[in-house]
Amino acid sequence: MIEISSLETPCIVIDENIVKHNIATMAEFARQNGVQLRPHIKTHKIPEFALQQVSQGAVGITTAKVSEAEVMADHGISDIFIAYPIVAPSKIKRVIALAKRIRISIGVESMAAAEELSRQATEAGVTLQLRLEVDTGLARTGVAPHQALELAQQIAALPGLDLNGIFTFKGAVYKGSSTLDLEAAGLEEGRIMVETAEILQNAGLRIQHVSVGSSPTAIYAAKVEGVTEIRPGTYIFNDRMLTVMKACQIEECAAKVRVTIVSVPSPDRLVVDGGSKTFATDVQPNQPPLQLKGFGEIIGYPDAILERMNEEHGMIRTNSAHGLRVGQTLDIIPNHICSTVNLHNEVYITNEEEGIRTLAVLARGKLA
Amino acid sequence: MIEISSLETPCIVIDENIVKHNIATMAEFARQNGVQLRPHIKTHKIPEFALQQVSQGAVGITTAKVSEAEVMADHGISDIFIAYPIVAPSKIKRVIALAKRIRISIGVESMAAAEELSRQATEAGVTLQLRLEVDTGLARTGVAPHQALELAQQIAALPGLDLNGIFTFKGAVYKGSSTLDLEAAGLEEGRIMVETAEILQNAGLRIQHVSVGSSPTAIYAAKVEGVTEIRPGTYIFNDRMLTVMKACQIEECAAKVRVTIVSVPSPDRLVVDGGSKTFATDVQPNQPPLQLKGFGEIIGYPDAILERMNEEHGMIRTNSAHGLRVGQTLDIIPNHICSTVNLHNEVYITNEEEGIRTLAVLARGKLA
Repeated sequence: MIEISSLETPCIVIDENIVKHNIATMAEFARQNGVQLRPHIKTHKIPEFALQQVSQGAVGITTAKVSEAEVMADHGISDIFIAYPIVAPSKIKRVIALAKRIRISIGVESMAAAEELSRQATEAGVTLQLRLEVDTGLARTGVAPHQALELAQQIAALPGLDLNGIFTFKGAVYKGSSTLDLEAAGLEEGRIMVETAEILQNAGLRIQHVSVGSSPTAIYAAKVEGVTEIRPGTYIFNDRMLTVMKACQIEECAAKVRVTIVSVPSPDRLVVDGGSKTFATDVQPNQPPLQLKGFGEIIGYPDAILERMNEEHGMIRTNSAHGLRVGQTLDIIPNHICSTVNLHNEVYITNEEEGIRTLAVLARGKLA
Repeated sequence: MIEISSLETPCIVIDENIVKHNIATMAEFARQNGVQLRPHIKTHKIPEFALQQVSQGAVGITTAKVSEAEVMADHGISDIFIAYPIVAPSKIKRVIALAKRIRISIGVESMAAAEELSRQATEAGVTLQLRLEVDTGLARTGVAPHQALELAQQIAALPGLDLNGIFTFKGAVYKGSSTLDLEAAGLEEGRIMVETAEILQNAGLRIQHVSVGSSPTAIYAAKVEGVTEIRPGTYIFNDRMLTVMKACQIEECAAKVRVTIVSVPSPDRLVVDGGSKTFATDVQPNQPPLQLKGFGEIIGYPDAILERMNEEHGMIRTNSAHGLRVGQTLDIIPNHICSTVNLHNEVYITNEEEGIRTLAVLARGKLA
């Protein structure tokens, strides 16, 4: 049995009991609210966890990439929604290959993509399941709600395509606004989507799926009558952002980065062996609305701040008489676990009964 | 022969002719200034490039991690300096295993580490080559110059250790100061190191190596009489930071991220299929002293700004009548190429004569 003290650092250590709790809690929430749960696997990128999510009640999974869907299909996942506009002919070809093996649906939000999808689907003799992406405020991909009907009708008229849903990711909470109201954000996301779906349905379009994000907002959006599906991702591990948003408790954070102190240059400074190649830097400290202090929460040392990083160095500022020495380890909950896991080839899973095992982050680096 | 138009995006495409030019230019600079060149391979993490650097005159390579050194040793590199304080007993054991195979030296900056190094070296019957890390202003790892002599004498007195050099990475240019003077930074780095080396040498310590960073400052630090070695890394590819620092020309940037436009939500906005899992976010826009506009330089569209990213989306703002459409590709020079390459499992190498080939980023994800 591997001992945790024998792990080489830096590494990610994941508590399997917390993962099971998080998977079960979201599944139960979805059941109670009568919505389908289709977790986004971007957070873990590990087939074993995707299979656990499905076995606990998820109808399938969500991916952002065709390549991620291929990895998951190869490992037994049979129902995948690629929540992304697939536009390149080469990628559409791969989607069609997947559609012959498993139940797959993809995002669409332009006629340019829809026409190529239609052409290839017709040629291959398959019907592609599509969901129209609606922009509910993030200003990312997606059609504006008031333009959804026109685009949906044009797409639905093309052969080889079955436009049967709409989806969005609002994520207003990530936009750097100065206020943060998850409930209001989730309810607004749900409301816009249900109104949009009704306009399409009233025009005769067969919109069955009204699908919304995200770990912090899903439990509110799901309460809007007419929402059929939620696609949270981060909830499986949770992270510091979600604790600060009060979307989870710190005890529900399953994944921590384990680092070793390599230098104590002065009593108020420590340097650890994890930097920006170990911890993601996409969620920066001191930014509104979260105003996170540093790049992670250092377990047991609430006053210590991981305030600065180079590629392989993490600089911690602490005012306390911490007594920490070179060679000791620290466990840190990163600001954003999804992009942090993405930096690691494997993670360590701890389990009180079975000790530690390694899981490969099989779908990481699958950028295309 | 693979055509560039057939590459799935997002991906990194590297122009081999520019790489060769960059390798040759730095090697020639080192020769002319009478310093040894020991490139840091953190930028590329690819053995083939490390071997090219050595064949063009580098005395060996630099790594940050034991694991990177192991990968490079496995692929024929025989002289490696791990420019990092190695403190964990398990890692020291691996260093000793390497020391039995190749010429290896490592960083040291604490007695805690030195004592364990000495203990294991003595037990294994090897002599470990060490270099003392000196902090020349970055406030990262390293001993303060005025404390270097005392620590060096204590370390040198331990059995099994050969303390034969000092090293630093100043990187003052990365510290967010409001001014940027590479020449002054490099000269100061060199001057502090030479003065420190002389103090140690005058006390009878055998300090042969006086080793300094970095791609933007090495050509200045190397001109200080007494500096013996430079360890630039980024110069092999260059990046947008270095162009803005005027440390290279944009034509000397060898590595670009190729992305596909997946959405044109409005005439002044584009969304591409590369976000924070494709482009590193450790060098943020609008920060002093560089004040970079966005996360990369979009080739051919100087007015366009990659202003915002989610994990798999890059949001570009443009005021020009760009005429770009869904499905077209863009090439982007990232702000920081080292941490960007680190996100990719492989890169594509282009060469006018031989077309395109793939190289695995073999030492990426080797965090321990």
